[in-house]
Formats: sequence, C-alpha cells, structure tokens
Amino acid sequence: MELIEAANAEALRRMAESDPVLVDVRPATALIPSLGKHMILHAGPPIAWRDMCGPLRGAVAGAILYEGWAPDLDAAASLAAGGGIAFRPNHHFYAVGPMTGLTTTSMMLMVVENRRFGNRAYCALNEGLGKVMRFGANGPEVIERLRWLVATLGPALGAALRRRGGIKLKPIIARGLAMGDEMHQRNVACSSLLVRELAPDLAREVTDGETLARLFAFIGGNDQFFLNIAMAMGKAIMDPVGGIAGSTVVTAMSRNGHEFGIRVSGTGERWFTAPVETPRGLYFPGFSAADANPDIGDSAIVETIGLGGMAMAASPAVAGFVGAGSAADALDTTRRMYEITLARNGDWTIPALDFAGTPMGIDIRKVLETGLSPVINTGIAHRQPGIGQVGAGTVRAPLGCFEQALIALAETLGVTP
Amino acid sequence: MELIEAANAEALRRMAESDPVLVDVRPATALIPSLGKHMILHAGPPIAWRDMCGPLRGAVAGAILYEGWAPDLDAAASLAAGGGIAFRPNHHFYAVGPMTGLTTTSMMLMVVENRRFGNRAYCALNEGLGKVMRFGANGPEVIERLRWLVATLGPALGAALRRRGGIKLKPIIARGLAMGDEMHQRNVACSSLLVRELAPDLAREVTDGETLARLFAFIGGNDQFFLNIAMAMGKAIMDPVGGIAGSTVVTAMSRNGHEFGIRVSGTGERWFTAPVETPRGLYFPGFSAADANPDIGDSAIVETIGLGGMAMAASPAVAGFVGAGSAADALDTTRRMYEITLARNGDWTIPALDFAGTPMGIDIRKVLETGLSPVINTGIAHRQPGIGQVGAGTVRAPLGCFEQALIALAETLGVTP
Repeated sequence: MELIEAANAEALRRMAESDPVLVDVRPATALIPSLGKHMILHAGPPIAWRDMCGPLRGAVAGAILYEGWAPDLDAAASLAAGGGIAFRPNHHFYAVGPMTGLTTTSMMLMVVENRRFGNRAYCALNEGLGKVMRFGANGPEVIERLRWLVATLGPALGAALRRRGGIKLKPIIARGLAMGDEMHQRNVACSSLLVRELAPDLAREVTDGETLARLFAFIGGNDQFFLNIAMAMGKAIMDPVGGIAGSTVVTAMSRNGHEFGIRVSGTGERWFTAPVETPRGLYFPGFSAADANPDIGDSAIVETIGLGGMAMAASPAVAGFVGAGSAADALDTTRRMYEITLARNGDWTIPALDFAGTPMGIDIRKVLETGLSPVINTGIAHRQPGIGQVGAGTVRAPLGCFEQALIALAETLGVTP
Repeated sequence: MELIEAANAEALRRMAESDPVLVDVRPATALIPSLGKHMILHAGPPIAWRDMCGPLRGAVAGAILYEGWAPDLDAAASLAAGGGIAFRPNHHFYAVGPMTGLTTTSMMLMVVENRRFGNRAYCALNEGLGKVMRFGANGPEVIERLRWLVATLGPALGAALRRRGGIKLKPIIARGLAMGDEMHQRNVACSSLLVRELAPDLAREVTDGETLARLFAFIGGNDQFFLNIAMAMGKAIMDPVGGIAGSTVVTAMSRNGHEFGIRVSGTGERWFTAPVETPRGLYFPGFSAADANPDIGDSAIVETIGLGGMAMAASPAVAGFVGAGSAADALDTTRRMYEITLARNGDWTIPALDFAGTPMGIDIRKVLETGLSPVINTGIAHRQPGIGQVGAGTVRAPLGCFEQALIALAETLGVTP
C-alpha cells in the first residue's frame, strides 16, 4: 500500500507540475511520421471495421475520399471493409480526436507541448457545427471545409502561435472555469479568450483583410472551437503520468462507439475495455433516444484531468444543456467526484464552490469502493452517418473497465486479488 | 394606488421591450451639439468645483489640458476654480461616464441606440487600466492615450459597427451573465465576446496589420472594456422609462464623489441627492480604507437595470473581488434585491439561481419598506488625483435619496405623506 501511495503522489505531482502550452499547428505527416497512406487514426481503444458504428464508418469513408484513396464513398467503404485500411487509435500516436476523431495524413494538427516534461500531444482543428466529419458526415461541404482548414486556418494559426511563442493553457482554463466553461460541452469562454489572445498576432500574420475576416468568423462562429485544444492539453498532461509502477490513477478514458476503454498509470499503455453505454440526456427537436449512437470520442480525456462532467459545478448552464439537473445538482455532481479522486487542483478552482479546486486524479480503487464512476459530459451523435449531433447528455464510464484494471494492477504488484 | 400600479407596469413594459444596439462611435461634438468650448460633462448629479473631490479635480485639469484650454495643469485648475468652465452632468445630455466620467468636445463616444424607442445614449471609450483620467490621472501618457482613442480606435470601431449594422446587446448580456459577468466590476466575458463579434469587420476596415494588431491588443488587454458599453446600454434602456406619472421605478442612480443622486420615473428629470458613502471592500496591496475616495461615477446605471451588485449571484468571482463574501452570500445578495424590485428580467437569467431572471425595476416604496437599498459594485479610487484605482467594493445607495423621492412623488399625486 505504501508503494501505491508513493506512486499516486508522484502521479499527482506530475499532473500539478504540468505546463501545457499551445505552440503550433502543423501537418500531421510532420508530427506523426509513421502516419502514411491507407492508415487512419480513430477515437477510442482499438477497433476493427466490422465493429464500427454508423458515424464512424461514415467518417472513415469521408476521410478516404478526402485523402484521394478511393474515387467515391462506395469505393471507400469497400476499401475499408476489405481490409485495405490500417486502423489505429489516436492515443497510440500522442493524438486525440473528438467523436469519431479521425486523423489522416493530409490534416493539420494543433500541438500542445507540456513544457515541464517535454512531451507533445496533437488534435485536429475543430470543424465547427452542422455537417462535420466527427459526427460521421462526409458530403462535399465537409471535404471542402477540411481543405480550407489545411490551406488557410491551420497555417495562419500556426504562424500566429509561433510568433507569440505559444499560449499557456492553464491560465486560460482557470479563467474559463470562472466563466462557466467545463471544457467539454461548453467552451464558449475559452474559445472567446483564445480569439482575444491570438487576434493581434493573427492580424500581423494574415495580411489579406478578407481572409483574416473569414478566419475570425470561422473561429468566432464556433463556441466549441476550444474543445480540441482542451483535449490535446489533457493528453499532454496525462501522457507523462503513465507508467508509474503501482499507481492507480486513470491516465486515459476514451470510446470508439463500441467499447469504452481506460488506461491506468501503473499498467502503462494497456487498455481495459467494456461495452460502451449510450448517453442519457436531452435531444434536439425532432430527435429522441432511438436516434442516439453509443458513446464515442477521445474527448473524455477532458474528464480524465478533472474537467467536463467532473467540473459540472463550474457550469450550471451545461448541467441544463445535458439534462443533468439544477444548479444545486451541478454542485453535487462535482462534490461526488471528489469521492473518487485523490486531490483538488491547485490551479483550477470553481467560484460556485467557494474556489475549491477541480477534482484531480481519478483513483480506480475509489471508483470501485464507492461504485461511483466518472461522469462524462458528451455530445450525442445520430446512429446513422452524416446526420450529426442530435443532443447532449452524460454518460458513465463502465465499472467493468475499472474492475479489470484493478486486477491487472494487482498482478503487476504480485498480488492475486 | 391603481395609478401607481399601472404606471409601474408601463415602466416595466418599456424596460422589457427595450432593444439596445451598439451602433456607432462618433465625435462628441456630432452627438451633443451643445457641448462646446469650456464645457465639461461629469459623472453624477450637478456639482460645483468647490465640492469636487481630488480625483474629479485632477481629471478636470487633465481634460482642460487635453482640450488645449490651458497651457498646463496649474493654469487648468485656476481656470476651473475661477468659474471659467461650465460643469454639467452627463445624464443631462443622454450620456454616462465611469468614475469621474468626464466628457469633453474632442472625445469620441460610443452610441447605443434603443431601437424600440428610437433614443440614443453615449459613453466614452474605456481607457484601460493603470493611470487613466476616470480615476483622476492627468499625465502625458493619459493625454496621449486619449488622442489615440480619438485618432485610431474610435474611428475603427465606428466603421466596423456601421459595416455590420450594429451589435444587439441584450443577447451579449445574456451570455455574459452565464459566464460570470455582472457587467460592473466584471466584464471579462462580454469584453471577449465583443472582440469575437467585431473581429471580422475590424479586419475588413483596418487594412494596416500593425494598427489592427495594436487595436486588438488594446481591447483584449482590458477586461473592463465592455463596462462603458454596458453603461450606455443602461442609459438607453432607462431614458424612455422616465416621466411616467405615478411610477415609483428608479430610472438613474449616480454619484459625483460628493453626492449620490437618483431619478425616479414619476418625478422626471429631478435629482434626489444625499451625501455619498465610501465603498466597503478590498484594497490592492499597499492601500487601505484611509486612501479611499467617496463613491463616484455614473456606472450605477448598471445596477439601475438590475445588473452589477443586483446580479451578484451571477458572479461569485466578483463577490470575492469586492469583499462581498462567499458564493452563497452572492446568491443571497441577489435574492435580497428581489425584495426591492418589481419583476424578474425575462431575457437575462442567472444559471446559479436555476435561471431566475435578474431583478428588474427598483421600486422606491419597496426600498423604504424593507430598508434595503440597492447594492452597487464599484471600483475604489484613491482620494488623491492621479493615483488611480486602489481597490473594489460595494456601496449602498443612501436611503435619504429614496425618502425625498417618495415625498416628491406623493406631491405629484396630490398626496401629502
């Protein structure tokens, strides 16, 4: 037990000392050299084509078309179904992606560097709302937008970030929490703060006024623009926490639409999976639970660092949006998450809890002792590809993942439970 | 009594139907034709030079120098002391100003139009932090910054606003309340949302990249940039509420550093004044209550429309900043303000109160019945000119104003109390 306490103290130290900085936007090939032709990175733990849900298959076909590996969507699906595509999790390449979360060779990725530990994490640019690949859409406007992101927005953001030497993210999150963001289903504050921070250097880098205006309109038109940054930040914070012998701290939570997977520090990069649940929440007009796809996306990395559903108290507006009750219920949600975490964040506080820190360090032992699993705030995709988001809700990480992880961790310590 | 109820219903209707839109930034002379040489508009009810506090005198001397009406600060003070300047309240010219709140002929003013009633209200551009005229500073950097506002920022903002046909303010406030702003001592959300909204059109209007960058840096470097817009909005909302026979609704609250003044709908443009109090609050390092200037500024127009201290529940971070207690105390402050108001705002809600509307329509009868006067969140100026802000706190509107107003209102109704 002393070994576990020491290991968890080290895990918490690494989380606390992390210094995530948004430093660049670069082509995926430059960041992930092994990412080549006929290879697609996806959200969640490993998955084969046969197990993929509708939105994920739709997004895969769109990505193949976007990359020019097939002439049309049917041919793209045939290529994937016939084993012509290598599918790998983002998490195996220092990357994350929301919902279907596809990463392919011709995309540009944002880079968050953890300056304390020197590691980097990647996430694609947020595509905005409506028909988007992350929800399985794959029409011409989706492909065209991806090309604009690579040709215009990505290079401009990258240049502005390099010019100013990056943007430290911990202070932005601290402000965002005081402004009602929980950084998963609500990023309006952080998205706005980012525009404010970057606007001067964007103005210096982009000399054509109309191009600059379109760029501001794109970012400014998307309250969730910051989500992908928060996700890369989460990955950059948690990667150095992996591999501490004996530590029971969760280092990743992620879903591929079929399975929910977690990683735990003391068991390194191994995934512990269980069937994923379907979120419970509120549906946009015209949709219902019958339309909902099972939970999907790497975005639960945000909860892994104590934000999102874990920080519900910061965001009563999100509690309403995801159908999680009143303002008092939002406070209670975070209070319950203190029961399954090891510490409170010293940098990130919640005004409505009189500046108590966000929950930090999910402990698989505490999850199993209490039977409380982490609360995740999530978007709900339609189960058919191409329709997009139909609602928002909460989902719980399945207890089965934590049970398996505890057994495996015990084995690493020579204990048979 | 039926007359009063009907009059107050009409007052509430006008507040609810108001449609304030930030439409332009224009030279003061174009907006206020009677504002000429040797005339200075100031915050609060009318005041003579002999009664002016240190910061107000300092700001007046700086404004005279800025306008070129005297060669140096000593000559400027002599001019003012000798009766060479006509002092008038901003409120008498559809204008408002924070702290000392000076408005002179060579400034540029933001214009908020109430599209429902066709009236307009004005406020100068926020100067930013540090040594600024609104806190009584008058050094060369203060004067130079004012010139840059007139030469660069004002025209650019005006052009961008005209290009996009104005920015509706009620939706911005609604979002800001869900992001922890109360629009008096905290405007970080609304300031950021404004940059995000205006960035595309600023990029189209300002073709020089470095000028545009400096402009974004100026606005983005000032969390309180939006305060002056919120104030002009408050004035634009409340001016059409004035002059309803029998109405007991407060239409203005304002302070000149010597007296606190209120106006009430049923008594038109008459001021009811009482000695102003000194705010109670928290001081920046190195300062204490002994340094505090008595309360000053037109900014309490924000509380008049139910924001600022009245909406403390929206902003537990402000409650901490102004020394008004815990998150629970912040909720209680707004709950108490419901006792002195007639309705709850249907457009502006507070997530932490489960989306209850902000208090709307301060009723002088309820203030006197309960003995609860409106809570105002305010900056604290140093009592010497030129030092600037030394803290932030809360102040109460003196009950004496409300007592006089009730007597005067009763007289208009032929009742002798």
